[in-house]
Amino acid sequence: MKWNLKPIFYPKSVAVVGASEEPTKIGHVILRNFLKSFDGKVHPVNPGHKELEGLKCYPKVSDVPGGIDLVVIAVPARFVPDVMRDCAKKKAKGVIVITGGFQEIGRKDLEDEVRNIANKAGIPIIGVNCLGVFDTNTQVDTLFLPRFKLERPRRGGISFISQSGAVGSAVLDWAGARGFGVSKFISYGNATNVDEVDLLEFLEKDESTKVICAYFEGTKRGKELINVARRVSCIKPIIAIKAGRSAAGAKAVSSHTGSLAGSDIVWDAAFKQAGVMRAEGVDDMFDIARVFAEQPAPRGDRVAVLTNGGGFGVLAADACVKHGLRMAELSEKTLSSLRQHVPEYAVLKNPIDLVGDADVGRYDVTLNALMKDPNVDSIYCIALFQTASLDSEVVDLISEVGERKEKPIVTVSTGGDFTKLHMRLMEENGIPTFDTLESAAKALAAVTHYQAFRSSTVCKSL
Amino acid sequence: MKWNLKPIFYPKSVAVVGASEEPTKIGHVILRNFLKSFDGKVHPVNPGHKELEGLKCYPKVSDVPGGIDLVVIAVPARFVPDVMRDCAKKKAKGVIVITGGFQEIGRKDLEDEVRNIANKAGIPIIGVNCLGVFDTNTQVDTLFLPRFKLERPRRGGISFISQSGAVGSAVLDWAGARGFGVSKFISYGNATNVDEVDLLEFLEKDESTKVICAYFEGTKRGKELINVARRVSCIKPIIAIKAGRSAAGAKAVSSHTGSLAGSDIVWDAAFKQAGVMRAEGVDDMFDIARVFAEQPAPRGDRVAVLTNGGGFGVLAADACVKHGLRMAELSEKTLSSLRQHVPEYAVLKNPIDLVGDADVGRYDVTLNALMKDPNVDSIYCIALFQTASLDSEVVDLISEVGERKEKPIVTVSTGGDFTKLHMRLMEENGIPTFDTLESAAKALAAVTHYQAFRSSTVCKSL
Repeated sequence: MKWNLKPIFYPKSVAVVGASEEPTKIGHVILRNFLKSFDGKVHPVNPGHKELEGLKCYPKVSDVPGGIDLVVIAVPARFVPDVMRDCAKKKAKGVIVITGGFQEIGRKDLEDEVRNIANKAGIPIIGVNCLGVFDTNTQVDTLFLPRFKLERPRRGGISFISQSGAVGSAVLDWAGARGFGVSKFISYGNATNVDEVDLLEFLEKDESTKVICAYFEGTKRGKELINVARRVSCIKPIIAIKAGRSAAGAKAVSSHTGSLAGSDIVWDAAFKQAGVMRAEGVDDMFDIARVFAEQPAPRGDRVAVLTNGGGFGVLAADACVKHGLRMAELSEKTLSSLRQHVPEYAVLKNPIDLVGDADVGRYDVTLNALMKDPNVDSIYCIALFQTASLDSEVVDLISEVGERKEKPIVTVSTGGDFTKLHMRLMEENGIPTFDTLESAAKALAAVTHYQAFRSSTVCKSL
Repeated sequence: MKWNLKPIFYPKSVAVVGASEEPTKIGHVILRNFLKSFDGKVHPVNPGHKELEGLKCYPKVSDVPGGIDLVVIAVPARFVPDVMRDCAKKKAKGVIVITGGFQEIGRKDLEDEVRNIANKAGIPIIGVNCLGVFDTNTQVDTLFLPRFKLERPRRGGISFISQSGAVGSAVLDWAGARGFGVSKFISYGNATNVDEVDLLEFLEKDESTKVICAYFEGTKRGKELINVARRVSCIKPIIAIKAGRSAAGAKAVSSHTGSLAGSDIVWDAAFKQAGVMRAEGVDDMFDIARVFAEQPAPRGDRVAVLTNGGGFGVLAADACVKHGLRMAELSEKTLSSLRQHVPEYAVLKNPIDLVGDADVGRYDVTLNALMKDPNVDSIYCIALFQTASLDSEVVDLISEVGERKEKPIVTVSTGGDFTKLHMRLMEENGIPTFDTLESAAKALAAVTHYQAFRSSTVCKSL
């Protein structure tokens, strides 16, 4: 079945079933989330209340006047089939079932019942047994974990689908605190009638999604997944973590989500064929995704490294080469412009070492020259904030140069809280910022290599 | 020459040459550093002042009454030979020369002069052209970078020598903010008469140093370095970054410190032979070092993973196996103790999935059982703080269990500011804490594999 998932992410009206006045209840937290920032209509549903949070509360979904786009269900599993029947009656357009207690604890019967009702009525379900959805565009937010424990990321181009709720929430929180920009987070749990293939197809068309991240443990539709992934990869990059690589991990997968992890060699080959970039960890995945989401595509593999710390320049060159980038040969025009503006003791090679007393002026001249240099495809900018001469202004400079989106730029800064503050500011301005040299090189290389896939015959034949 | 470097790190009296009242001067910052926390006598030296910061100021080192252990020199390069002659006259026991402007800018003559005077007088020099020393034990602190930009780490067992000042200061700042424990940081610049070999020999005997980290770009004494490293490695672990792996990096090395990077294959083989663990980046290096510094040695390679997020358990198992650890088979005693105390829906395999509603009680039972389990050599503990049930108490629990030092334990938490606060608390309590699954597995594996080197014939024959 080909679902229309738009009403789930862009609803005009939402009903929360299991809404409650009890602060520890999931239904309460979710209702509050919607009241906080969602623009559409919100209807609490609970037969035990006439009113909740100042809103009229309805006994059933079908009692709500007007159409309902999205129903969020957070009542015990045994009640879910009845609620689903009522959603069918009301012709709700999409449902998120947070509730667990189905197939994952042996109640396949109950999940089958829910699926049958939904399929017959043509209602897509996110879940069951999931965290649901967080969308920075519409503020659809069904995350019921304590807000002080789970930071929400800013709006951006990365969408992330996760079979595991725990992985999803930890990553979302982590991304939020680092200033990474996210479009949609989707925890789809048991994939009762909407699975990773459906979600990929939805994100393929979703305009706010520039890059897709995915955490899988397995799939029931391997062939379709790879076919769809290949098609999507030619339009938007996909970066995936496939857990259960090792025998021990595969065993753990079957205890965790009951999926078959499948042969890792087969997964690896399939991902390659489909142009899906495989990440090992969530950090890798987001590192690559951030460069895709915020920066233009590089035209080639020639990188220029600049630094105010010589040792970091050396290590950056090592890391870039290791990941398959080439060190650019700077043009004569760049070199002569630098010779005019930076002191003699700076090293005008690649890496360009602006040395320890570099100030924002030296960065300015250098970044602008590199942006114009036809021999340079991407810029790897190291800014160490420990020195007395490099002040906070460099954040604005790098952000302004980056905003022109002429060539991809990534920055690396390593340090404590002072440094981290500046990193977050740059990140929020759309400059992918890294605290290790290796991770920046890996991400820049992945983005560079993806361009080769996109211009390959695989994509041209589509 | 075999130096006695103890007076540099454990001085009773210090003279600061170039001390100044001007806040932006290096000599001012260093004098203030000593006045802030150093316990011994501090003497400013500057012919232009009678008094500085309330202390009598002397025209020359030789004018200071009593013996001088350490002289810190921060005057322009052309004055350094005369100051050094005066140090010789005063029979100072060690010198740190912060000043640059010697061999690195073509003034080999000036550096040779300084070296000749020092060698004749038997005075070891840290530098020239360096950041000098930061010692958490004695508070010898010659770091002249702005304090708000460069956090100082807490006291601990990691000593770090760095040919590059920028690498050193960025890493120190980074380590400080994360709660890592450091003993000594040594930036040795041009290695005028004290080089990496001398420093290794000093740290070999230094009781406060449990593990040695090193950043090299090259060495003039390759054979001695490897011989000493092999001897030291059998006593204390050494983790090294050797920059200039790639051709591009090697070229950058020669522009940076004028060292010959040398063949990377030769370096790699030499490190292996000497039991030196090679890290690619400063994060890797400190990740491994923290486990050595804070945790006991594992007796074998069998790791137990516990988690409150299933997906993280799967990925952890994958990462542990990838790095050569074995998943432990939990003993029947452990399993039956867990069966009694954790709910039926928890997964009592390895990884142990305590599931999303795990509280500190479940962690308590599990960690204690694993500490006693003879089939388990090390513990890999994942604690995701996003869930409502896991509260801050788990920090105390993990810290208490870790403090017993029965088996190595590492923890992984991924998240935003709430999580990071808890991570730092654990780190400061001596629990190596990681935000990625991969880095924890890599570090635990490195520590495990080092035990094999230590019990190898290489060490037994010494």
